[in-house]
Amino acid sequence: MTNKIFMLMTLIGVPLSFIGTLMHWSNGILFILYCLTIIALASFMGRATESLAIVAGPRIGGLLNATFGNAVELIISIFALKAGLVGVVLASLTGSVLGNLLLVAGLSFFIGGLKYKRQEFNVYDARHNSGLLMFAVIVAFVIPAVFTLNMSEGKTLTLSVGISSTLIVLYLAALFFKLVTHRGVYQTTNDIDTHDEEEPEWGKWKAIAVLAIATIIVAYISEHLVHTFEFVAESFGWTELFIGVIIVAIVGNAAEHASAVLMAFKNKMDVAVEIAIGSTLQVAMFVAPVLVIVSLFFNQSMPLIFSWPELIAMVSSVLLMVVISNDGETNWFEGLTLLAAYVIMGIGFFLL
Amino acid sequence: MTNKIFMLMTLIGVPLSFIGTLMHWSNGILFILYCLTIIALASFMGRATESLAIVAGPRIGGLLNATFGNAVELIISIFALKAGLVGVVLASLTGSVLGNLLLVAGLSFFIGGLKYKRQEFNVYDARHNSGLLMFAVIVAFVIPAVFTLNMSEGKTLTLSVGISSTLIVLYLAALFFKLVTHRGVYQTTNDIDTHDEEEPEWGKWKAIAVLAIATIIVAYISEHLVHTFEFVAESFGWTELFIGVIIVAIVGNAAEHASAVLMAFKNKMDVAVEIAIGSTLQVAMFVAPVLVIVSLFFNQSMPLIFSWPELIAMVSSVLLMVVISNDGETNWFEGLTLLAAYVIMGIGFFLL
Amino acid sequence: MTNKIFMLMTLIGVPLSFIGTLMHWSNGILFILYCLTIIALASFMGRATESLAIVAGPRIGGLLNATFGNAVELIISIFALKAGLVGVVLASLTGSVLGNLLLVAGLSFFIGGLKYKRQEFNVYDARHNSGLLMFAVIVAFVIPAVFTLNMSEGKTLTLSVGISSTLIVLYLAALFFKLVTHRGVYQTTNDIDTHDEEEPEWGKWKAIAVLAIATIIVAYISEHLVHTFEFVAESFGWTELFIGVIIVAIVGNAAEHASAVLMAFKNKMDVAVEIAIGSTLQVAMFVAPVLVIVSLFFNQSMPLIFSWPELIAMVSSVLLMVVISNDGETNWFEGLTLLAAYVIMGIGFFLL
Repeated sequence: MTNKIFMLMTLIGVPLSFIGTLMHWSNGILFILYCLTIIALASFMGRATESLAIVAGPRIGGLLNATFGNAVELIISIFALKAGLVGVVLASLTGSVLGNLLLVAGLSFFIGGLKYKRQEFNVYDARHNSGLLMFAVIVAFVIPAVFTLNMSEGKTLTLSVGISSTLIVLYLAALFFKLVTHRGVYQTTNDIDTHDEEEPEWGKWKAIAVLAIATIIVAYISEHLVHTFEFVAESFGWTELFIGVIIVAIVGNAAEHASAVLMAFKNKMDVAVEIAIGSTLQVAMFVAPVLVIVSLFFNQSMPLIFSWPELIAMVSSVLLMVVISNDGETNWFEGLTLLAAYVIMGIGFFLL
Repeated sequence: MTNKIFMLMTLIGVPLSFIGTLMHWSNGILFILYCLTIIALASFMGRATESLAIVAGPRIGGLLNATFGNAVELIISIFALKAGLVGVVLASLTGSVLGNLLLVAGLSFFIGGLKYKRQEFNVYDARHNSGLLMFAVIVAFVIPAVFTLNMSEGKTLTLSVGISSTLIVLYLAALFFKLVTHRGVYQTTNDIDTHDEEEPEWGKWKAIAVLAIATIIVAYISEHLVHTFEFVAESFGWTELFIGVIIVAIVGNAAEHASAVLMAFKNKMDVAVEIAIGSTLQVAMFVAPVLVIVSLFFNQSMPLIFSWPELIAMVSSVLLMVVISNDGETNWFEGLTLLAAYVIMGIGFFLL
Repeated sequence: MTNKIFMLMTLIGVPLSFIGTLMHWSNGILFILYCLTIIALASFMGRATESLAIVAGPRIGGLLNATFGNAVELIISIFALKAGLVGVVLASLTGSVLGNLLLVAGLSFFIGGLKYKRQEFNVYDARHNSGLLMFAVIVAFVIPAVFTLNMSEGKTLTLSVGISSTLIVLYLAALFFKLVTHRGVYQTTNDIDTHDEEEPEWGKWKAIAVLAIATIIVAYISEHLVHTFEFVAESFGWTELFIGVIIVAIVGNAAEHASAVLMAFKNKMDVAVEIAIGSTLQVAMFVAPVLVIVSLFFNQSMPLIFSWPELIAMVSSVLLMVVISNDGETNWFEGLTLLAAYVIMGIGFFLL
């Protein structure tokens, strides 16, 4: 069903985006058109990655999912960096973290919880993830913000690059831990039949072709999308911060939202949690540091320094999630708590 | 025993308060007289609420306890708001949170622990409460303090009202979760006989009458009490902050202190924890946001912006409690740790 | 093996230190000579304390370990305080906390984890320690930093002394809890044979003699060591902060590093964790407050006010450790996470 909708959106959205760009339609219409088309293409990229991951086996597959899972966000952010929109990129990273931790997980827990009284997920994974969330957000994001208060720009960038490298190394080590040295070590009984006998939706070459074509189109559209931000900010009365935190984050993560909630509804809470928290970690430990390093090749480099509202929003979300996910159980109320936190932050960023 | 003392305090305190007010006794004497009389009346209100709750059955009863449990504090605060003492009200909310989390729980754990080596309480409730504490204090209280640093007064108030509404909605949802959809779902074996066969102390109408009369007298006294604050601050050399955080909080919560410690001594640790942490949540998620909204009808409205010392004190108390209560077990040393934290904060607020 | 190396280092280092001091060798050479000699002497003091502790039985022995365990650090710090180097002392306390929590524990978990897939330690002790870490760092260190922002110097010192006294009282209470009222209460099955049938390495009088002589020499060298700091800072381009956080902390804790890692390698994870976290608590709850009180007798008194980078580094380390140690299990990746956090903070303090 959703696949058909996304197919339709692609078939209409891609040609219209090309035509609209060439004919210089109004920025407001282009902004909406670009956003919807990217959401549709992102779903194709997700399915292609998924198929490739199954074909490639669990180890390489896990690596593929972990690197291409947030490809759309990475592409949009690179074009935004190229256009000098450092603030928007940092805001959209924040938005991704908040969106995955509070909105995706919150909706999954809430909607899953309407159907089931108590839902369980692998408590070992939850604790492993909690440690990484603490490391990425509370150590790697907060330390530079405090340490660079009176630091020169050069040293700030040195610190940012040092921390970014550490994040990437630890992210790769986490994959090695999960896919090689400790694969299956922390499995609980109800994990065993979940991941069995998966069939890839598409063959290897079809998946690669879809991935390649969709990526190229997303890149083309993203380059034009970032130039509509300024106009949208002005005419809607939104700040660039709000566009980054809420809009870019939702466009970049729409596909994940849908599949996480679906998994929760099927009582596959392990998968839902993996999508929500795994995606958060990917953004914080891979996308963000890669962008810092990529930005060194552009005119304006991006230090890993979030604004205080961004930082406090991420820190409090992580602490909330660590406490809520600590017992490996969810219910509708825990979902509602996460959603309520998202609402509060949404109001805050809107008013900022 | 304590009941007789409170009866005596009421029989002496209420007429003396009326006479003293009319005859304009010295503010210092009136302050002490008002405080003691309110403590005594609060115990009657607590017993009346308890009786009504048993008569009404667990659902409506839980709701009654959850709304009238901090009625005295709500009444004093409303009169303080009316008199424009916004700072004192925020300080007394802080004091309630600290008092319940550190002093009430600390004393319960400590004194209970002198008698029993290890005491247990429902670990599911503890985790549910931990999530709510994180939400209320770390999300809902910290976010506005950081986000409004450079915000206009109007937007600050909008954000405060938005957060307050979210808090109240989530508080009601928490009651619905606990009393309706998940009642008994997370019960442990030693919960079962605890709440059985309770007999109300008073009949329905007697309880309503006691509650109504005590509430009216408390309201009358509170109105005069708040006008003695300025004088007390001056002559004792206390800041309004200290009066709010320590004095008002102790007066408003004296009855809870007594009953929580008593329950701990009877090894009913579930009830003691429920009083201490339940009361904290009620203040943070119900009393505080209601006061923000009520204040809109007064001359001076109260934004949900605590001072940094208040905020840090609450945040560190919540983190300490979450870590200590996480395992569902207590001993005398955990109680002493909470009390030591209270002592540190007491010294801090005194010197501020 | 290591014992022989330390013996050699002592036999060469002590005379050379005396000669070098008298002959006014260059500060750079003296600095390195002093550091190495103190590391060697510290290992003798550790073995002497250990022997005395076994002779004295578990209660008095526990007390001995808890007070003399960080004697070297205490001695160096007292001479630094006497020389007015308040900033270096606070930095070296920070460095001890970070070094023990991140470097010692991180190396133990990592190296132990290379040999064993999963290593366990007593989860009750871990939770007990987590509560104390939260209390010491998040309550007792953060509160004064925030509360004294607009406070007079006199009140700041009063608050520091009040908090320091509370810390020492709670530290003694923790020893009483562990060694007297709750000894063996929280034992798990694999604890039982660990601490059996220990033989002291040295007799009572030999141990006392070694402890006394080594202490006197360490004191002599420390007095001269602190005067080389200024020179080292200048010629190496290091800040005094970096010297305190990284260098002094490593010199003061080298012996603990070695033995914790050795224990982890022998799969005695309980002992390794006890060394790392126990030593952190000793620094935060005993060494730091004792130094505050001792400083009152010197020209320049030391308030318990850490700088913001120091504070944030300690707070995020504690939160990370609490989350990681919460389940009573370790693996190589958890060790690597702690080490990565240490690297980030090391870069930060170097650039500061």
